[in-house]
Amino acid sequence: MTTPPRPWPGLFISFEGIDGSGKSTQARQLYESLRSGGHDPLLTREPGGSPGAEEIRALVLQGDPDRWSAETELLLFTAARRDHMERAILPALQAGRTVICDRFADSTRMYQGRGGLRDKVDALHDLMIGIDPDLTLLIDMPAEAGLARAKSRATDEERFEDFGLDLQQRMRDGFLALAAAAPARFRVIDGNRDMDSVARDVHATVLRELAPSS
Amino acid sequence: MTTPPRPWPGLFISFEGIDGSGKSTQARQLYESLRSGGHDPLLTREPGGSPGAEEIRALVLQGDPDRWSAETELLLFTAARRDHMERAILPALQAGRTVICDRFADSTRMYQGRGGLRDKVDALHDLMIGIDPDLTLLIDMPAEAGLARAKSRATDEERFEDFGLDLQQRMRDGFLALAAAAPARFRVIDGNRDMDSVARDVHATVLRELAPSS
Repeated sequence: MTTPPRPWPGLFISFEGIDGSGKSTQARQLYESLRSGGHDPLLTREPGGSPGAEEIRALVLQGDPDRWSAETELLLFTAARRDHMERAILPALQAGRTVICDRFADSTRMYQGRGGLRDKVDALHDLMIGIDPDLTLLIDMPAEAGLARAKSRATDEERFEDFGLDLQQRMRDGFLALAAAAPARFRVIDGNRDMDSVARDVHATVLRELAPSS
Repeated sequence: MTTPPRPWPGLFISFEGIDGSGKSTQARQLYESLRSGGHDPLLTREPGGSPGAEEIRALVLQGDPDRWSAETELLLFTAARRDHMERAILPALQAGRTVICDRFADSTRMYQGRGGLRDKVDALHDLMIGIDPDLTLLIDMPAEAGLARAKSRATDEERFEDFGLDLQQRMRDGFLALAAAAPARFRVIDGNRDMDSVARDVHATVLRELAPSS
């Protein structure tokens, strides 16, 4: 990637993928690898990632799944992202740190953009967030494999994982379409391998981006 | 006012004004008067007005005043309004009821629109709310008188009333400017009189709007 001038010295990396793709594990692995290499990265996640955003996350995800309409949920997630961005992501990037974020705006484009809301998702992002990661690692995985892995985990926040194979397939296709539409920012990583192979691939990809451009 | 065709049979009335203007008292008085006259109005308020919106209200208003940035606060209030609109206001209007709302989007235009955010407030309203009241009663009051009245009340949510005379003056001027810019929807009521005189004026104004247009 030819690196365009960034408004901050740090590198902003997001991990995206369907549930069960292993992206959270890979985000943590990358964090550990960079620390071992002498970096001081910030590992964070969405929804949540700052004290205020975590409170909003709890408000959205707890209780009756029909508690909020799609539009209200989108606004609450955007409020959480704004707080997370202002209080955690931007200060770290401005201090020159690498930020590793487990899910960012692409997840909202996919999950909250369903049902005809994609235009509103994009307009709201442009209006109130306005930044995208420098690098997005899409951990790609067949829908069946992801679903099997997601189901094997116990979680209190199953709302977004309880929609079955058809949704998983559409989300996978959607993420791949996002990646194809923004090739400068996206790298697609084959997540359907043993964890260490995926982690090596992720690490090598990020080291290429961290290296001074020549 | 020549009544344009409305998308719902009910009349949507908001009360606006600076803190201490008496708008909450007047909203309740109107509610009681309409009930006495055989109507079945809905009395509600913002921020809040539906169970979800009240939870968001609590999240915004409790704790450290610097807890949320202006942008995050705007998103949270918009999420609360979306919920309130979907769950309380629109169902009542569609059922033909008169809705009396203590503050609506004009308060956001004034209070959250400060500091250069007015364009974002308007864009967010158009994108995610999209409706304005049929009738907005601006209870107008000199800044000094409103401030004196607001200060005489004890409240747990003083954040928006603790900014002094200069803010009150700017908010009054701002509300009057909004009213001048949207004369079809706004009626300015002189609130600097005894409560009963103001209430009679409010009631007469609303009865004119409720009467079948000829």
